[in-house]
Amino acid sequence: MSIITLTTDFGLADGYVGTMKGVILGIAPTAIVVDISHDILPPSPQDWGARGVREAAYTLYAAYPYFPQGTIHVVVVDPGVGSERRAIALRTPQATFVAPDNGVLSYVVAGEKVEEIVDLTNPRYHLSPVSRTFHGRDIFAPAAAHLARGIPLAELGQPLAEIIVFPLPRPQARPDGAIVGQVIHVDRFGNLITSIMSKDLADHFLLREGIIEVKGQSIRGIANNYAEGTPGELLALIGSSDHLEIAMSSGSASQILEAKVGDEVLLKVEGHEDR
Amino acid sequence: MSIITLTTDFGLADGYVGTMKGVILGIAPTAIVVDISHDILPPSPQDWGARGVREAAYTLYAAYPYFPQGTIHVVVVDPGVGSERRAIALRTPQATFVAPDNGVLSYVVAGEKVEEIVDLTNPRYHLSPVSRTFHGRDIFAPAAAHLARGIPLAELGQPLAEIIVFPLPRPQARPDGAIVGQVIHVDRFGNLITSIMSKDLADHFLLREGIIEVKGQSIRGIANNYAEGTPGELLALIGSSDHLEIAMSSGSASQILEAKVGDEVLLKVEGHEDR
Amino acid sequence: MSIITLTTDFGLADGYVGTMKGVILGIAPTAIVVDISHDILPPSPQDWGARGVREAAYTLYAAYPYFPQGTIHVVVVDPGVGSERRAIALRTPQATFVAPDNGVLSYVVAGEKVEEIVDLTNPRYHLSPVSRTFHGRDIFAPAAAHLARGIPLAELGQPLAEIIVFPLPRPQARPDGAIVGQVIHVDRFGNLITSIMSKDLADHFLLREGIIEVKGQSIRGIANNYAEGTPGELLALIGSSDHLEIAMSSGSASQILEAKVGDEVLLKVEGHEDR
Repeated sequence: MSIITLTTDFGLADGYVGTMKGVILGIAPTAIVVDISHDILPPSPQDWGARGVREAAYTLYAAYPYFPQGTIHVVVVDPGVGSERRAIALRTPQATFVAPDNGVLSYVVAGEKVEEIVDLTNPRYHLSPVSRTFHGRDIFAPAAAHLARGIPLAELGQPLAEIIVFPLPRPQARPDGAIVGQVIHVDRFGNLITSIMSKDLADHFLLREGIIEVKGQSIRGIANNYAEGTPGELLALIGSSDHLEIAMSSGSASQILEAKVGDEVLLKVEGHEDR
Repeated sequence: MSIITLTTDFGLADGYVGTMKGVILGIAPTAIVVDISHDILPPSPQDWGARGVREAAYTLYAAYPYFPQGTIHVVVVDPGVGSERRAIALRTPQATFVAPDNGVLSYVVAGEKVEEIVDLTNPRYHLSPVSRTFHGRDIFAPAAAHLARGIPLAELGQPLAEIIVFPLPRPQARPDGAIVGQVIHVDRFGNLITSIMSKDLADHFLLREGIIEVKGQSIRGIANNYAEGTPGELLALIGSSDHLEIAMSSGSASQILEAKVGDEVLLKVEGHEDR
Repeated sequence: MSIITLTTDFGLADGYVGTMKGVILGIAPTAIVVDISHDILPPSPQDWGARGVREAAYTLYAAYPYFPQGTIHVVVVDPGVGSERRAIALRTPQATFVAPDNGVLSYVVAGEKVEEIVDLTNPRYHLSPVSRTFHGRDIFAPAAAHLARGIPLAELGQPLAEIIVFPLPRPQARPDGAIVGQVIHVDRFGNLITSIMSKDLADHFLLREGIIEVKGQSIRGIANNYAEGTPGELLALIGSSDHLEIAMSSGSASQILEAKVGDEVLLKVEGHEDR
C-alpha cells in the first residue's frame, strides 16, 4: 500500500485534482492519495511562474519529511507545461518525487542524497494521447501510480545526471555580526516564515537579547508561542519547520506589516546600530 | 473496493462534505471517496441555480472519463432540494451517476449509452428522517454507498424512462464558413474553455491560418502550449478536454478580457470579413 | 480500519493538513482520514481565538453524529498552542475526540455521556521534538493515530475529571411567549443557522402563524425548502441539523441582512406586539 501526495496550483474548483486521482486509482487501486496543497500561489499575472515554483518547493519541503519512508510526492506547479521542459522522477532514501524539471525540487536536492533521477520519457507510462496542457493528468499522475504499483523508476525513462535547481535563500552574516535573511513564505495566519533557521541564531537571540527588524518594526528576542504576546503585538519565534517566524498575537503580521515573500529580515545584537 | 466521487457546491468550510463522507463510510466502509469539486459556482444571488447546474455538468464531464470503469459519481448541485424535483441514479457502461434530476447529467446522457435510470424513492436506502435541505447527506450519499456495497440499482427506486437535460452548447457554422461558439467554463487560471472542440476546427486553423475572436480581440492560429506566448499575450490552444481554450501567457485571459461563461467566441478564416 | 476526522483552521494552502495526514499514516497506515473542515473562521484580527473555537465546536457538532461509531475526531483550532492549555482526548459511547482543552468540545459534552478524559501528557505518543506552534502535527495527529491502531486512551496520559466548556447558546422564552435566540453559524450559502431548534417551536409556528424577526425583517411561518420562496424572498425553515435557519431563495440571507454570528433572532405569535 503506497502513499502518493499531491502538491499543485490547480485549486479545488475545476476538478483537475480529482481527475488526477481518478487516473492514479485506475492504475494503482490501493494507493492512498493525500493532498499537501492545491493552492500554491493563487494566480496572479505578475511573475507568476517563478514565484509559484518557489512556493511549491517550500511547501513540499515543510511537509514531506513527515510522511512515511517510501512515499511518492507529486508536484505539479508547471508553468512550462507542454514546452521542452522535462518531466522527472527523483529518488532519495526518504521518498520518490515526481515533478517538472523547473527547480521545484531544489530543497529536496539540497537536503538529501539523490539516488536516481529519470527523465519521464517512456510513453508506455503516459496516458495516450498526452495533452499539451495537463501533464499532471497525462504524465505525472500515471508515473506516480506506476511507481506505487512497483514499476522500477528506471523503467519510466532515461537516466538523468542533473536537474534544474534554484539557489536556496540562505541568511548572510554582516561584518558587524548582524544576520540578513528574508521572508520565504507567508502562511494563512499571516505568519512570516523566514530563511533564518534556529541554528543561525546565536545564543543571545534565544536569551532575548537580540533584536529582529522587519519592515521598519523591531521585535525583542524570541517568544515561546503565539499566545505569549498581548493582542496586536509582533512576536518572533521558532516555527514548526525550525525557521524563524514573525507572527502577531491575535492578528496577521503580514497584513499589519504589509510584508511579502522576499522582504528583508534583520537580526541584530542590542546596542549595535544598524546602518 | 468501489470509488465514489463527489461534485457539489457545498464548499469545504461548513462540514457538509465531511458529513456526506461519514454517511458513506458508515454504509460502505471500504469505499474510496474522491472529491472532484465542491466549489461549483461560488454563491452569487444572480441566476444562481441554473448556472450552478451547468457548471457542475461541465466539471463532471471533464473529469469522470478519467476514473476507472464502475466508479459511482455523486453530484449535489441542487437548488431545488426539498421540492418536487426527483433524485435519480443513472447507469452507463462507464459509470453510475447519482444526482438530482435537474440537467446536471446532460453531458453524460449526450455522450454515453444510458442503460438504466432509477428514481431514488425507496426509503429503505435513505437516512431517516430525511431533512428538507440536505439530500446530499440523506439521499444521495446513502444511495451511492449502497450501490458501492453491491445493492442493485433497481432496488433503489422506480425505473425512469427520461430525465431532464439541457441542450448542450454546440458551435454553429455561419454561411461564410465562420464558426460561432461560446465560453462554457472559466477555470482558476482564467483560461476560457469554449464549446468549440478540435473536431470543429478546419485544418487551416491548426495550420495557424485562422483567426479566433473573443471580446473584441483577435488571436491568430492555435498555439501548442501556455509557455509559447510572450507574457501577456493571448493564446488559443486545444485544452486538456479537447476543447478550444483561450489563455494568456503568464496571466489571466478572463481578467484581461472581462470574459465570462456565455460570451461569444468566433473562428474565421483570415481575410474573410466578419459580418 | 479506523476513521479519523480532522477539523482545523489551517486552510488548505500551506500543507499543514497534509503534514498531519503524513504523521497519521506513518503511525496508523490503514486509518481512513476524512476532512470535516479546515476553514474554521478564516483569520481575522478581531476576537480571533474565541470565535474560532465556537465555530469549530458548532461545525463538529453538526457533522460528527453522521460518522460511524468509534470514529476518532481531531479538532485543532488552537489559539493557545504552546501555552499552558492542555491537550486532551475524550471518549463517549459514540466517538473519541482529540482536541485542545479550550471549549471546542462543549457541544459534545452537553449532548453525550462522557466516559473517559485524558490529558495527553505521555511523551511516548508525541512526535519528538514537540514544536511550540504545531501541536496538530506533534501531539494531536499522533494521539489520534495511536488510538486508531488500538492503544488504550488511558495510555496517552493522565486521567482528567473536568475540561473547559463554554455555555451553549440556548433560546430564552420571554414573558409574552416570544422566544429570543441568536445566529450561531453562517454557512457558505449565507444561510443563518440559529440557536432555536425545532423542539423550541410551538405548534403555531409550524402552522405558519408565527413571525420570525431578524435584523428588522419579518418572516411569516416556516417554509418547507429553499425552493419554496420567490427569488429574493427571505425564508425560515428547519435546517439539516434540526435548527431554525434563515435563508433567502436564490440569494444570500447573510449578505442582504448584513447578519452575523451573535445577531438576535426573535419568534413571536402574530398579533402580539414586540416591545
